[in-house]
Amino acid sequence: MLQFGPLRRRAWVALLSQLLRPPRPACTGAVRCHSQVAEAVLTSQLKPHQEKSNFIIKTPKGTRDLSPQQMVVREKILDMVVSCFRRHGGKRLDTPAFELKEMLTEKYGEDSLLIYDLKDQGGELLSLRYDLTVPFARYLAMNKVKQMKRYHVGKVWRRESPTIVQGRYREFCQCDFDIAGQFDPMIPDAECLKIMCEILSGLQLGNFLIKVNDRRIVDGMFAVCGVPENKFRAICSSMDKLDKISWKEVRHEMVAKKGLASEVADRIGDYIQCHGGVSLVEQLFQDSRLSQSKQALEGLGDLKLLFEYVTLFGIAEKISFDLSLARGLDYYTGVIYEAVLLETPAQAGEKSLSMGSVAAGGRYDGLVGMFNPKGHKVPCVGLSIGVERIFAIVEQRMKAFGETVRTTETQVFVATPQKNFLQERLKLIAELWDAGIKAELLYKNNPKLLTQLHYCESMGIPLVVIIGGH
Amino acid sequence: MLQFGPLRRRAWVALLSQLLRPPRPACTGAVRCHSQVAEAVLTSQLKPHQEKSNFIIKTPKGTRDLSPQQMVVREKILDMVVSCFRRHGGKRLDTPAFELKEMLTEKYGEDSLLIYDLKDQGGELLSLRYDLTVPFARYLAMNKVKQMKRYHVGKVWRRESPTIVQGRYREFCQCDFDIAGQFDPMIPDAECLKIMCEILSGLQLGNFLIKVNDRRIVDGMFAVCGVPENKFRAICSSMDKLDKISWKEVRHEMVAKKGLASEVADRIGDYIQCHGGVSLVEQLFQDSRLSQSKQALEGLGDLKLLFEYVTLFGIAEKISFDLSLARGLDYYTGVIYEAVLLETPAQAGEKSLSMGSVAAGGRYDGLVGMFNPKGHKVPCVGLSIGVERIFAIVEQRMKAFGETVRTTETQVFVATPQKNFLQERLKLIAELWDAGIKAELLYKNNPKLLTQLHYCESMGIPLVVIIGGH
Repeated sequence: MLQFGPLRRRAWVALLSQLLRPPRPACTGAVRCHSQVAEAVLTSQLKPHQEKSNFIIKTPKGTRDLSPQQMVVREKILDMVVSCFRRHGGKRLDTPAFELKEMLTEKYGEDSLLIYDLKDQGGELLSLRYDLTVPFARYLAMNKVKQMKRYHVGKVWRRESPTIVQGRYREFCQCDFDIAGQFDPMIPDAECLKIMCEILSGLQLGNFLIKVNDRRIVDGMFAVCGVPENKFRAICSSMDKLDKISWKEVRHEMVAKKGLASEVADRIGDYIQCHGGVSLVEQLFQDSRLSQSKQALEGLGDLKLLFEYVTLFGIAEKISFDLSLARGLDYYTGVIYEAVLLETPAQAGEKSLSMGSVAAGGRYDGLVGMFNPKGHKVPCVGLSIGVERIFAIVEQRMKAFGETVRTTETQVFVATPQKNFLQERLKLIAELWDAGIKAELLYKNNPKLLTQLHYCESMGIPLVVIIGGH
Repeated sequence: MLQFGPLRRRAWVALLSQLLRPPRPACTGAVRCHSQVAEAVLTSQLKPHQEKSNFIIKTPKGTRDLSPQQMVVREKILDMVVSCFRRHGGKRLDTPAFELKEMLTEKYGEDSLLIYDLKDQGGELLSLRYDLTVPFARYLAMNKVKQMKRYHVGKVWRRESPTIVQGRYREFCQCDFDIAGQFDPMIPDAECLKIMCEILSGLQLGNFLIKVNDRRIVDGMFAVCGVPENKFRAICSSMDKLDKISWKEVRHEMVAKKGLASEVADRIGDYIQCHGGVSLVEQLFQDSRLSQSKQALEGLGDLKLLFEYVTLFGIAEKISFDLSLARGLDYYTGVIYEAVLLETPAQAGEKSLSMGSVAAGGRYDGLVGMFNPKGHKVPCVGLSIGVERIFAIVEQRMKAFGETVRTTETQVFVATPQKNFLQERLKLIAELWDAGIKAELLYKNNPKLLTQLHYCESMGIPLVVIIGGH
């Protein structure tokens, strides 16, 4: 604790500036946990004359506020993700939260039902964006951009039944990296897998695996198993649920709801058992049924090349060719992938979380062309980091370890034990601020010294300047 | 330019790591301007079978994409704003993009018409947030938080007629800092003015002035001028337009549209000429008419104290007591303020922009209580930085000076003059990435050396590693 009279103020400000540069990192050291703000639900009356006499103060279903504690964790994780995107030459882009409704139609298949529409208040019909991929494709087409590596961090909205336990919200943050342009096969695709590995390794979430497949292999498999072509996307949507429900349930949906012959479903059931490395690719080249599909062979050829490149990148052991991977969205045309955490490290007090996929993506060569009057295509491949799930895992882990974070970065607190020192405190703190020092005081004319010191302690402020008269 | 064979790769990666740490700042040095992406409007057909045979690829009215160039400028400005908020002990908060519709009703007066509603798709009735203040008040009430210094950077949406020339959009970013809690008078209010000064000075936007008034003085003035009490808010809304239209037009609206007696309007017209420093406060204490209003006297008393504190903060010369300042929003209850740029520096080639206010705010002691079932109040004061206008000014200035920015931070480009070197390039770049070096290559099996070097030059990449055989 430093103590000095008002006259030597300037010298002390200079000294503090010295002491505090470079600024201390925000979250070091153990600090007292600031009480977690619980979600309270209150029944209330806005104004007596209002018709709805009772209303509940809450956020909309499936949404939530993010407390300062949560924001600190998020910002650290997002900084890490963004720095990886920048390491790979990404440029940042932003698009509006809503798009013309027609921009989003016929892009998402069955998931289109989950799109939030805005009310028609005169003018254009609008919808909240459902992902960051379609707005990116719209941007490329609108500006005739033929080549771009971009990343985008932003919120998207989906009217899903919020099973909040699993970390699913109706409003959530996405972190996307995409490479648009006509290039030699599988080089950008392999880089996308490398980026996913760097981020998941960097965040130290535990062991993970990236399942890889190709939409052409999926479609080829459907064709040789006897799925009618007009049912490809619907059956693909069902298959995409395999990470949430069992094959038995998926099979039931295919047969009972989507009218697939049961022997066709069983043939699919045989294929989706298959997963492995490059040797599985070689094996399927020889598969008497699958090799009849030209597009499946194309997909297999590209996967072989992909395995070559990920081996050069040193990440081959993280990649698993998995025939059960389908990806629900309509727009994929080539390689698809999904990263899953294999286990959370066995740590005392930590409940095992079934988090599903934490990153995913794929190739979508036709999407930009859907926005182009002449159908000119811009091939694209990209990935999306499931940061909400990652936030949930990190938050749970911090809770298990009793870790807390400082939610402010204040370096110096200006206190006084004497009365009528407000003027001096205000003069001094202004000098600190002007010198770039993060400083606070209590907004009271004559606060008690103990109250002031207690505030410092509870906020984890490392330095206190105490001023008083001679 | 560095040249080396594949065998000495590891040594070179280590050397590059040395060379490049600490990483070079992103935007130093003159680099070639990456072509500005123009907003193109295309007429198109999504799919042949679609009924709407023509559609235009565009963003919704009043919204826009933000290009990588714009994002670089924005991030620098936002970093500066946020670091000021942190210097003053702010905690970051985030709230959903939409709120229950009823949370936003009766908060904004006439401006409520500009709220975007979501379509009723079953379930709750929702609206996009109109500002960050009402969600903050809702958060405080919902979580029974009685004291908090928070900042929030996020988008808000308003269905305004977009006069895009003036930098007004229907989607725009707000940067808010608010201090909630029961404190001694005017200390947090003065800190809000200090924060505005620090940010506007720090951004070097030129000379500025912060107009200050008090809602109680406005209401007191209305009362002593003879405005009927039920017209206070409507007349206040008209007065708020004084920065956009002349007094003559405002007076016409008051008399013709809002039914105010013309002599009442003229009395108001006399008062709103007044602006000045603390001496004006003293003068108005003696004003025979205004001093009849108890609430005006309260406001004048607080302004006197505010001038004392801003003098201690060293910013008194930036503050002007201005009776013409009204602020449109319903929820203000005490001091109100608005920062305006006085002039843009006379610079060659720069057109003078009439940007209006660049920051504003005030005290709203009743808003949190509107969400509380028992009406428990949490006094608040805060400010909002008009970052969109600031972005527009900085972008225009950069354009005038021909300044450009790098939109990527890539440090090293991996090139080769030889054929069949893809494998080596991939192996090397993975090592660079793993060492934390920002690196790129061309996604081609056998790119020409000139193409590779041209890419480096156009992207401003400072180092090239050229690999080849012996």
